Amino acid sequence: MTPLGDYARLDTDRAARTGDPEVVYGAGKTPQQVVEILRTLAVAHPERAVLATRVADDAIDAVRAALPEAVVDAVARAVTLGPLPEARGTVGIVSAGTSDAPVAAEAALTARVYGAGVRLVSDVGVSGLHRILAAREELLAADCLVVVAGMEGALPSVVGGLVGVPLVAVPTSVGYGASFGGLAALLGMLNSCAPGVTVVNIDNGFGAGVFAARVARNAAPRPTA
Amino acid sequence: MTPLGDYARLDTDRAARTGDPEVVYGAGKTPQQVVEILRTLAVAHPERAVLATRVADDAIDAVRAALPEAVVDAVARAVTLGPLPEARGTVGIVSAGTSDAPVAAEAALTARVYGAGVRLVSDVGVSGLHRILAAREELLAADCLVVVAGMEGALPSVVGGLVGVPLVAVPTSVGYGASFGGLAALLGMLNSCAPGVTVVNIDNGFGAGVFAARVARNAAPRPTA
Amino acid sequence: MTPLGDYARLDTDRAARTGDPEVVYGAGKTPQQVVEILRTLAVAHPERAVLATRVADDAIDAVRAALPEAVVDAVARAVTLGPLPEARGTVGIVSAGTSDAPVAAEAALTARVYGAGVRLVSDVGVSGLHRILAAREELLAADCLVVVAGMEGALPSVVGGLVGVPLVAVPTSVGYGASFGGLAALLGMLNSCAPGVTVVNIDNGFGAGVFAARVARNAAPRPTA
Amino acid sequence: MTPLGDYARLDTDRAARTGDPEVVYGAGKTPQQVVEILRTLAVAHPERAVLATRVADDAIDAVRAALPEAVVDAVARAVTLGPLPEARGTVGIVSAGTSDAPVAAEAALTARVYGAGVRLVSDVGVSGLHRILAAREELLAADCLVVVAGMEGALPSVVGGLVGVPLVAVPTSVGYGASFGGLAALLGMLNSCAPGVTVVNIDNGFGAGVFAARVARNAAPRPTA
Amino acid sequence: MTPLGDYARLDTDRAARTGDPEVVYGAGKTPQQVVEILRTLAVAHPERAVLATRVADDAIDAVRAALPEAVVDAVARAVTLGPLPEARGTVGIVSAGTSDAPVAAEAALTARVYGAGVRLVSDVGVSGLHRILAAREELLAADCLVVVAGMEGALPSVVGGLVGVPLVAVPTSVGYGASFGGLAALLGMLNSCAPGVTVVNIDNGFGAGVFAARVARNAAPRPTA
Amino acid sequence: MTPLGDYARLDTDRAARTGDPEVVYGAGKTPQQVVEILRTLAVAHPERAVLATRVADDAIDAVRAALPEAVVDAVARAVTLGPLPEARGTVGIVSAGTSDAPVAAEAALTARVYGAGVRLVSDVGVSGLHRILAAREELLAADCLVVVAGMEGALPSVVGGLVGVPLVAVPTSVGYGASFGGLAALLGMLNSCAPGVTVVNIDNGFGAGVFAARVARNAAPRPTA
Amino acid sequence: MTPLGDYARLDTDRAARTGDPEVVYGAGKTPQQVVEILRTLAVAHPERAVLATRVADDAIDAVRAALPEAVVDAVARAVTLGPLPEARGTVGIVSAGTSDAPVAAEAALTARVYGAGVRLVSDVGVSGLHRILAAREELLAADCLVVVAGMEGALPSVVGGLVGVPLVAVPTSVGYGASFGGLAALLGMLNSCAPGVTVVNIDNGFGAGVFAARVARNAAPRPTA
Amino acid sequence: MTPLGDYARLDTDRAARTGDPEVVYGAGKTPQQVVEILRTLAVAHPERAVLATRVADDAIDAVRAALPEAVVDAVARAVTLGPLPEARGTVGIVSAGTSDAPVAAEAALTARVYGAGVRLVSDVGVSGLHRILAAREELLAADCLVVVAGMEGALPSVVGGLVGVPLVAVPTSVGYGASFGGLAALLGMLNSCAPGVTVVNIDNGFGAGVFAARVARNAAPRPTA
Repeated sequence: MTPLGDYARLDTDRAARTGDPEVVYGAGKTPQQVVEILRTLAVAHPERAVLATRVADDAIDAVRAALPEAVVDAVARAVTLGPLPEARGTVGIVSAGTSDAPVAAEAALTARVYGAGVRLVSDVGVSGLHRILAAREELLAADCLVVVAGMEGALPSVVGGLVGVPLVAVPTSVGYGASFGGLAALLGMLNSCAPGVTVVNIDNGFGAGVFAARVARNAAPRPTA
Repeated sequence: MTPLGDYARLDTDRAARTGDPEVVYGAGKTPQQVVEILRTLAVAHPERAVLATRVADDAIDAVRAALPEAVVDAVARAVTLGPLPEARGTVGIVSAGTSDAPVAAEAALTARVYGAGVRLVSDVGVSGLHRILAAREELLAADCLVVVAGMEGALPSVVGGLVGVPLVAVPTSVGYGASFGGLAALLGMLNSCAPGVTVVNIDNGFGAGVFAARVARNAAPRPTA
Repeated sequence: MTPLGDYARLDTDRAARTGDPEVVYGAGKTPQQVVEILRTLAVAHPERAVLATRVADDAIDAVRAALPEAVVDAVARAVTLGPLPEARGTVGIVSAGTSDAPVAAEAALTARVYGAGVRLVSDVGVSGLHRILAAREELLAADCLVVVAGMEGALPSVVGGLVGVPLVAVPTSVGYGASFGGLAALLGMLNSCAPGVTVVNIDNGFGAGVFAARVARNAAPRPTA
Repeated sequence: MTPLGDYARLDTDRAARTGDPEVVYGAGKTPQQVVEILRTLAVAHPERAVLATRVADDAIDAVRAALPEAVVDAVARAVTLGPLPEARGTVGIVSAGTSDAPVAAEAALTARVYGAGVRLVSDVGVSGLHRILAAREELLAADCLVVVAGMEGALPSVVGGLVGVPLVAVPTSVGYGASFGGLAALLGMLNSCAPGVTVVNIDNGFGAGVFAARVARNAAPRPTA
Repeated sequence: MTPLGDYARLDTDRAARTGDPEVVYGAGKTPQQVVEILRTLAVAHPERAVLATRVADDAIDAVRAALPEAVVDAVARAVTLGPLPEARGTVGIVSAGTSDAPVAAEAALTARVYGAGVRLVSDVGVSGLHRILAAREELLAADCLVVVAGMEGALPSVVGGLVGVPLVAVPTSVGYGASFGGLAALLGMLNSCAPGVTVVNIDNGFGAGVFAARVARNAAPRPTA
Repeated sequence: MTPLGDYARLDTDRAARTGDPEVVYGAGKTPQQVVEILRTLAVAHPERAVLATRVADDAIDAVRAALPEAVVDAVARAVTLGPLPEARGTVGIVSAGTSDAPVAAEAALTARVYGAGVRLVSDVGVSGLHRILAAREELLAADCLVVVAGMEGALPSVVGGLVGVPLVAVPTSVGYGASFGGLAALLGMLNSCAPGVTVVNIDNGFGAGVFAARVARNAAPRPTA
Repeated sequence: MTPLGDYARLDTDRAARTGDPEVVYGAGKTPQQVVEILRTLAVAHPERAVLATRVADDAIDAVRAALPEAVVDAVARAVTLGPLPEARGTVGIVSAGTSDAPVAAEAALTARVYGAGVRLVSDVGVSGLHRILAAREELLAADCLVVVAGMEGALPSVVGGLVGVPLVAVPTSVGYGASFGGLAALLGMLNSCAPGVTVVNIDNGFGAGVFAARVARNAAPRPTA
Repeated sequence: MTPLGDYARLDTDRAARTGDPEVVYGAGKTPQQVVEILRTLAVAHPERAVLATRVADDAIDAVRAALPEAVVDAVARAVTLGPLPEARGTVGIVSAGTSDAPVAAEAALTARVYGAGVRLVSDVGVSGLHRILAAREELLAADCLVVVAGMEGALPSVVGGLVGVPLVAVPTSVGYGASFGGLAALLGMLNSCAPGVTVVNIDNGFGAGVFAARVARNAAPRPTA
């Protein structure tokens, strides 16, 4: 536990406890706080990349100025600092439409930071089924799938009926009117008729990436095995 | 306008105005009221069947006793009285699961009473896509589709991506938990990414049947044309 | 299926599959993406107009600069590119108040792009019934009606009681307070006591236009018949 | 203030304070409590009828046994005890469908107990407009209108556009699915585009009756004037 | 019915039908539309003031420039044009807190335009009961009360228990968090334990003013009587 | 920690940790489970009463048969076993209507079991303000107040404006329609304009009793002081 | 695809497609349908157990009569028919309270039927933290965790902070009032501050079991490896 | 009661009635109103600090200019004017994450202004339990706890299981997606399985501070006793 000014108690023991270091959730933090916490975490974990998500534009500028070695993923609105771990296992990231790209990118980067390999299957919404049917082999090759969709959120049900790979669904806030900020997609995914679909919060690419990476890492044969 | 006791003013002119007679909505009516209104409507429209929907068990018994010539559809919980009109055009009724059968049956009977032909495609939920893919020709042959589904309500998006036939989606209350009595399916259908999907109230097979019959009748070549 | 950069897989086969080409949904896309997708779709479908909806001001500017032959509908916030198809059948677009005009315009333009003729009946809200009563003949002349209303969304019930023409209701987000962004109108329309009213998402003039055009086209006598 | 056992403090001064005595709200009270409170109120107000609403079947039986002079209104599920006051002014009670009858009856009886005359206009739902148009003169003759409707609750908007009489709308729980127990009608009425519509709770015929009677009494010329 | 450009059909017969002219609801209209409709209504009703509500700052500027004889009420964000009618009867406008002032002002101006006199009782929220108790005589002197409150919306229940005057409650969007934009106050008022409280939409001072003016006018002795 | 069959791990150390023993929440437990847990807790805490709440009728019968020394509070639907602790400090339980009695009784019994004295002030709803005004001295004498109300839940705001005693509000599910099972009262209390009102779950008399007893005990002079 | 009467098209190819056979969801099916589908599935998959969930009492009786070799799990309200597969990997099922037992049992049986081993950790709710802290080694030994909790649903956040094992959270409908049938627990779990928590529908032990079994099976070293 | 211009009736007697002076709720007030009310309250209560909360940036500037002796708490967005009272008893303010700091600061300042001492325990969210476990002694030392948390709001359940100190939970709007502006945390806290947790409105640090100060003051031995 590392105190940081008077506003934070960094959970620097988390890696020992859960296998993965704490992450900077950038929303609601000042650019200075993002920089400071990122730097402190990087010092505590020199051997592997630390991650900041939901980083606003001004915080990205501050990070670029203060931590030039940081890598910015503009689509995912995220930053990493330090070397990415070797990839074990594969997370397949499937997204329904172009507007879902930021959430899919956050999931992909997170899975990579958490030690899994990543493959992207983009723009395969259910209104043109041939697209997802054509990707079936790619889906089967993954150890865990992250399926990202807004509007009615039907894609996880379709994918979950095609393959038996563990599947995490991410509803996005893409939509309008009775989408109610992603509620429609969230409810759709929770009620999926395909067995074994699990769900995370609206737009929570990060959480899906963490979970999928853990599943994929464990499923992959250990380097020494 | 036909007064009936002191509780109803039957809209017996509706057929002249909208082309179709008034229907008995059985919920919240006593068995005696159902029988009486059904009989009055049948007298006003001797040339074509009149319909009662959402008829409770005791009202079905009362109808059977008082109107032995009435035909009861037990699955649809509905009753018709009088000759069915000649069928013009075809309504395709597609349902996702066996629990959706009562709503699909109500839609089918209604479409038939309103003058359209009906074809049923049952138990083709999205978690087993090959079932709906195998039915594509049947879907294309319809002048209007009624797609009935509960849970996440994804079936209309899939069907709407396969064919360009006008499509009315019916969410059902099948489900539990975060289905919230059919709300999840309703929101899913309203947010469908397939263009041209329209929606009716939860479990409203009747409304979908009326609408689809009108579309199908108009699409069919007139007998004399 | 046409890949476009790394962000989209255009469903260029959709016209063959469903009879109508894919449409650009402009919300959440950059001006450059709107221009690029519009141009690609136009190339794939030179014989008929392609459509972009929900186009933001900066995207409209980008379209005007890059595609001078595009036609901008400022009220509908939409753009077309290419020749409009010949009109078959008639869609009647009925709107309740002046604030509903953008949604009605989107429905009208969409129906026209999808191959139907269009007639507008504007500002006929239910608080002044004589206005809609005076338009009854116009309503009857349509093959399909699109009824647009915000606030309590009562207009479809009134129209649906006057005529038996297939009717698609579009709730709008016009209103305040307990309108909850169009939820009140949406629920009102879903619960309409007029039989055969179907509903689309809040402010979804596009979806209503697609659906109504399909119904109207099918209802019209074929040119060669 | 009259203590009654250890469970109630009757507000027997309310008539002096607000012009009308307290009323027994029967829901959640035992039959014995209903009888006892009704009797106590009747003793405190011998000159005019006291009222119990929402009286369950067993409480009605208990009232009939213990207070044979009480008058039971079976449709309204209500009981009065004592002489009805002379009627001043007129409340028009307008209801949309036969299922709305219990709420309309509760409003009517309440208005009568609170000293207004009552006229009923039943079964004039908006899907058959000619019915309400035919009743315009009746509507104009009232000093205050109570308009009762379930489902989409559109009737108050239509009536409020026809006449300028003060109008209280009562949403009912009649409906299913996305009616959500009367919520759709409630929201519809709160968002009415007709100016000057006020609303009470779902199924609250009592509250509407109280309010309308006060308006009607005040509007009527005083007997001695 | 007066057509205005292609965007509006003014209901200029409304005064004959309901006793009061149409009003300009400014939200969602351009400054030019507000000016034009206001001028047209004023020409149609030269003998009495016409009203525009929810007028945005730029529309107020446009009105001041184009219609210098218009009177602007900055608190109510409303404009009148033409002579105010003689006041008949009294509407009492009671508000809970200083933040409720704009809604109370809209109700007051509306009631005045619709022909009633107005008295204001401000800042008498229930957390300091002595304030409303001290105003009891003022409350009793009104023919109709409009009670405006946000947050928990308890004031109508307290006022409705003090006096028997007809009472219209207006929930406001004042509050935060679980106020949900006025929903808490709206639900509170709909569930008021004081009999005879009616409710309008959140922040709908206009609707309350119309209703209350009609009640107050009818309650007042006619000038010639 | 005491294992009990294979279904429970009783938290018998809770008294040491938090000062009060675990309580049996009876809902969803079989009569046998209620009896067994109650007996086990009583054995672990012979010196003071243990409590079971929300005990269904069949469980009450089972308790009476198996534990004849248990004391049943029929109004509160609760059972105690063992000697009540000496009372320190005073909790005032204020309830709005007779239907709120079960929740008030649960709060009262709980506060007593948790070691506080209790005074009841019943049936003082806000629609008859004189009742609560007359009880001001009683309210001031309490160390903590529990205020129980359904419907619009306005009583805590009124009480909280009269006295500065710490106040816990308990919304009840008493009401109908837009009460939504107590949601209206809950939101009203959370938005109270009286400072310092805290709230517990709907119908949660138990939680309010626990909290208030802790506050009252601490506020009271210690026996030895 | 195996047609069954006219009500179902069994997805008997699902095992080939997804690795696991279809399951009988018993809710909304007649006892006869449950028996028939179970028998058909068992015939199609003689080598491994088939499963029926949410089996009502009368259907359990029918199964016992018609399929005496079926095994009934009374707590889980589920039935299996055929030999359970060899267990690979371990699913840890953690539940908060005794009322959550049926959902935990459904998850456990499902995971077992889907081929994983199962360990139960029961009654470790967060209000007595020592219980879950004492189980840390058991949690770490699992390949996937299923965490079942009602009320506020806080247990997954606590467990997810203790260990880095993939974690599926199951909200239950245990609770009352503002639990809204499990909605509070569902929202709590979706918003968990512990990274990598995924969620299934309320009371959906089945879905969690399927998912966790897939993860655990893949994580376990293959028998032949 | 002190009138202030025409917009406010200051409740200057509140201190006599409830023991604490009125507070300026800054939201929705102009900078001038904030300054004026603050000055008036300070004049009425020269012996102790008065407080303004939710003060916007421009109002803070106005206060600094007009009342240079005022003290601004930038984190809490609050202002005090006048000497802080002597501290009696201790309020422990516990917050889950750094984004909850403004609400915790508002609670702390309010408790201090209301006469209690304050201790802060920050950044002890449940996903790293060791942090809150390490703070147990600090928690036990408080007379009342205020526990501030957003997202799933689980911290009060954990704290309430650790110690028996009276506990007020404050949900914050920290979160996104299915947090719904703090609703998830609010529902979580209302459903806490730890007995004796009470809750205030989302982000209502002020209300929690008032309540906790009253409890802490009463619990502390009086100076002279």
